[in-house]
Amino acid sequence: MYRNHTCGELRIAHLNQEVLLSGWVQSSRNLGGMTFIDLRDRYGITQIVFNMEDDEQLCMSARKLGREYVIQINGIVKERSSKNANRPTGDIEIQAQKLTILNASQVPPFTIEDESDGGDELRMKYRYLDIRRNPVKEKILFRHNVALETRKYLSSLDFTEIETPYLIKSTPEGARDFVVPSRMNQGQFYALPQSPQTFKQILMVAGMDRYFQIVRCFRDEDLRADRQPEFTQIDCEMAFVEREDILNTFEGLMKHLFQSILHVNLPDFQRMSYDDALKDYGIDKPDLRFDMKIKHLTEDLKAHGFPVFDSAELVCGIICKGIADSYSNKDINEITDWVKRPQIDAKGLVYIKYNLDGSIKSSVGKFYSDEFLQNLGKKLEVEPGDMLLILAGGYDKTVKQAGELRLEMGRRMKLIKEGEFKAFWVVDFPLLEWDEDSQRFFAMHHPFTSPLPQDLHKLNSTDRDVLKSIRAAAYDMVINGAEVGGGSIRIHDRALQSQNFKLLGFSEEEAEAQFGFLLGAFEYGAPPHGGIAFGLDRVCAIMQGSTSIRDYIAFPKNNQGRDTMIDGPSPLDQKQLDELGIALRSNEAK
Amino acid sequence: MYRNHTCGELRIAHLNQEVLLSGWVQSSRNLGGMTFIDLRDRYGITQIVFNMEDDEQLCMSARKLGREYVIQINGIVKERSSKNANRPTGDIEIQAQKLTILNASQVPPFTIEDESDGGDELRMKYRYLDIRRNPVKEKILFRHNVALETRKYLSSLDFTEIETPYLIKSTPEGARDFVVPSRMNQGQFYALPQSPQTFKQILMVAGMDRYFQIVRCFRDEDLRADRQPEFTQIDCEMAFVEREDILNTFEGLMKHLFQSILHVNLPDFQRMSYDDALKDYGIDKPDLRFDMKIKHLTEDLKAHGFPVFDSAELVCGIICKGIADSYSNKDINEITDWVKRPQIDAKGLVYIKYNLDGSIKSSVGKFYSDEFLQNLGKKLEVEPGDMLLILAGGYDKTVKQAGELRLEMGRRMKLIKEGEFKAFWVVDFPLLEWDEDSQRFFAMHHPFTSPLPQDLHKLNSTDRDVLKSIRAAAYDMVINGAEVGGGSIRIHDRALQSQNFKLLGFSEEEAEAQFGFLLGAFEYGAPPHGGIAFGLDRVCAIMQGSTSIRDYIAFPKNNQGRDTMIDGPSPLDQKQLDELGIALRSNEAK
Repeated sequence: MYRNHTCGELRIAHLNQEVLLSGWVQSSRNLGGMTFIDLRDRYGITQIVFNMEDDEQLCMSARKLGREYVIQINGIVKERSSKNANRPTGDIEIQAQKLTILNASQVPPFTIEDESDGGDELRMKYRYLDIRRNPVKEKILFRHNVALETRKYLSSLDFTEIETPYLIKSTPEGARDFVVPSRMNQGQFYALPQSPQTFKQILMVAGMDRYFQIVRCFRDEDLRADRQPEFTQIDCEMAFVEREDILNTFEGLMKHLFQSILHVNLPDFQRMSYDDALKDYGIDKPDLRFDMKIKHLTEDLKAHGFPVFDSAELVCGIICKGIADSYSNKDINEITDWVKRPQIDAKGLVYIKYNLDGSIKSSVGKFYSDEFLQNLGKKLEVEPGDMLLILAGGYDKTVKQAGELRLEMGRRMKLIKEGEFKAFWVVDFPLLEWDEDSQRFFAMHHPFTSPLPQDLHKLNSTDRDVLKSIRAAAYDMVINGAEVGGGSIRIHDRALQSQNFKLLGFSEEEAEAQFGFLLGAFEYGAPPHGGIAFGLDRVCAIMQGSTSIRDYIAFPKNNQGRDTMIDGPSPLDQKQLDELGIALRSNEAK
Repeated sequence: MYRNHTCGELRIAHLNQEVLLSGWVQSSRNLGGMTFIDLRDRYGITQIVFNMEDDEQLCMSARKLGREYVIQINGIVKERSSKNANRPTGDIEIQAQKLTILNASQVPPFTIEDESDGGDELRMKYRYLDIRRNPVKEKILFRHNVALETRKYLSSLDFTEIETPYLIKSTPEGARDFVVPSRMNQGQFYALPQSPQTFKQILMVAGMDRYFQIVRCFRDEDLRADRQPEFTQIDCEMAFVEREDILNTFEGLMKHLFQSILHVNLPDFQRMSYDDALKDYGIDKPDLRFDMKIKHLTEDLKAHGFPVFDSAELVCGIICKGIADSYSNKDINEITDWVKRPQIDAKGLVYIKYNLDGSIKSSVGKFYSDEFLQNLGKKLEVEPGDMLLILAGGYDKTVKQAGELRLEMGRRMKLIKEGEFKAFWVVDFPLLEWDEDSQRFFAMHHPFTSPLPQDLHKLNSTDRDVLKSIRAAAYDMVINGAEVGGGSIRIHDRALQSQNFKLLGFSEEEAEAQFGFLLGAFEYGAPPHGGIAFGLDRVCAIMQGSTSIRDYIAFPKNNQGRDTMIDGPSPLDQKQLDELGIALRSNEAK
């Protein structure tokens, strides 16, 4: 036996018990007559004490232990003279009677502490040491809890977890597939699924009624920060449902996760239309932890002689409450530079300060009288001390810029409280997105999304603007400004699905070759159905207020898609290539 | 809303309630004045009744419904005049008031009944219809329960489910990898994991202490019946454990699964050594649902002038109880032919019948006197009516043949009771297996398995027989003659792991290139650890007494590795190949 207790469980109640512990040497302090060792395992840290007077030889061996040595200790639980209130085991220590070295350790390349001195690359290469650190370990444990509670909750509602295949068929639509050459069917390839979308719809046709799966998905895209080639989805589908059935069910899931894991009660989720989200917040995933809606001012400010506004499709702004008097010219210049950065790309920024003393200061005072601005302020319910920041330009671009400016001012004004959660649904997304480059429509969600019933009649239109105005039965769950999940009611009618493929530029042959099995399934009694998928790591990150999903992945890949710990991917033996019937195209041949 | 009840839940208690049901038309019976429809969903079947007198038009529409149409019914719950005790909803029926067709269906290509008229290929192509059938649906639901209870149980014991990557590095050792060309690292390939073995060991080095994962594994082997290119494992690892800790923990898991799902209490599991299993049952996964141990008779029967026995390395047999008098010459000829089949490949079969009247009949009566055989019978505790079947030849081959004969006689004599479970552990497997073809040792379990401490000293031997006799700290869980799981205590010492790689014929460079990250990890405080993996589908099949694991997989592949429903794998576009930097080797070029 290696241990009869963990390093996290001994308390005063165990006083004078003989115990056996195993773990890693976190640190050791040599105080002359005494040597103290902090022994660590997954569950905690327990202090071990070696006394020169009691056993000189044992104490001397203890002094030789290096950091991260794996040792076993037989000893007696004693009360500590100086207790450590910050540690659950801080009332006791173990008087060592025997020390066994289970494994030695080289000096680790970075410190195994909450704040490590190791850089990103080093920590990834030695990920097994990085995971020993509390912040990483805790995130992996947290993720386990989220996955387990998800499974318990959905299972309690008669959802069945069903595994769908990972070796499927490549479809050119959407993101790029990872592919797997088939040895038994040479010249042919499997694809790794970007999501189990078609399989979960097939399961609805198969009558499974309520499906879920916590499942790996794969996308061979160029990697940006926080995007991994493989990632995990909570994937769900329900039959015989309308949109509200799905929203209520998965609002329930999220409430359960917050309640059971964080002990936070989320209130009922609002529904906000995509159009309203864009109009009021300039983004389809608003952060509602602070208000500051975008004010549309085109009608108010146009045709008063200020050329920038007069020529603009949209003039809009945000009200920054209570900072008019404290916001210096330097501050104004800084935020003006911020909106002019290429990422935001605004031409400039107009301010109107409604000072506490009732005076007005504005960068466009030349064009608008104080009286005019006072009236505008009254209409907008501006209070003394508020500052209005205004942008102008083309509609789509400017409202988006105003949304970015709103988020930035929210951050600068520290309007976001730690530990607060604002969760809601964005609904009624457009069905189609026009792509200027390829001069065709793409599905905003995916090609299986149903239009809203009241917009079905527009599908036959040839007018691009009419087509753009078709709304989809699609929805996103948004928490604190992040999309944690999204889904839709699906098409379950073969004719409608074919029509949709046609709108998206698929020829009949292409649709048949890629999705013939699904179209075929629709002919054998497909029930109405819909679903949703959540990013598991995203859900974890939002719940813990973390900004990176990579922390929740035990073995993430870097931005070149490499795992630096195992040093993969790697070249294959010629024999393996031969068996697969493939050859590498040398650089010369290109 | 599509429904307010499922088709499985209405009872007498719901009498006269207005209900809304949705589902599939299982069958319809037109009895003149009345039309009955069986409406089916995942949860059950409810009878709907349409009455000509009440509503002629409604009744006429109902008559036009085809099998597998998806419909919605508004109606009133009524008591049935002729109840159906075989159906949970059999006391009631729904008096239809409104019928809505949600989707039509073509006539399905096979019947959606427990016993379908569809062949294997047809059912795989239309898997979404096959899954509507009860036996398939029930297996998928059962599998969900096994996975969920596994997760609950292991989580309750502080195991953490941690996802390991699917895009890893190819290793030539072991079975053939599926590989994935890397676009971002051209000329290099990921491999899909055959198991997360090295990652779970890394997680032990990382201090996660108790890991599990229900995880997909991939092997590109030639497919036999019941072998899938992708399959699911319950994969587990623990740190600071000895063999007994692991056996007890996972015996606990299996007891929990049987108790919580089947309400069967498994008794404590025996431990049987690999050597004893082979000696007594001729196989490393004996079916202990019946006794019939192999009797070793070499010393008893040799040197009595029967040339076949005299020249044999092993003479052994089984006692078939109580059939001596009823087992005809024809029966004997049949079982003799059976052991002579190429799959078994015995030269012949000797019988000795101890008849009820005390007489003896034997195919070797010429060589052994009745008295001799009576004495042999006494020694073997044979009773009147028993029959002895005897094989002879080389040791390894003959004991295996006797094991096969034992299983076959168990089946023919119907010694196996339905619903009985015999679960136990086989332990102390050999560490190494000698391969005559390649003239090298292979790891019987895998290269990370630790030798038993008491056999460590043999590792330095150069004597092949000494090396063959090294036992591993490996174990298999066997239930009803099937291996449901297996594992081992791992090596956690770099030097020992290197020595083991050397024994297996790895050069230092090969070991470093393939497993350098693991060897490196062992230098930074690797704890003692070990683990086990179960085949999820195998566990399900054993629990339900099913012989095929394929039934538990929602979308299995056929023996050519194809999914006939989606018709994959499939050729790639040239553009995709170009992006990956690979080319197909045409048949001409080979």
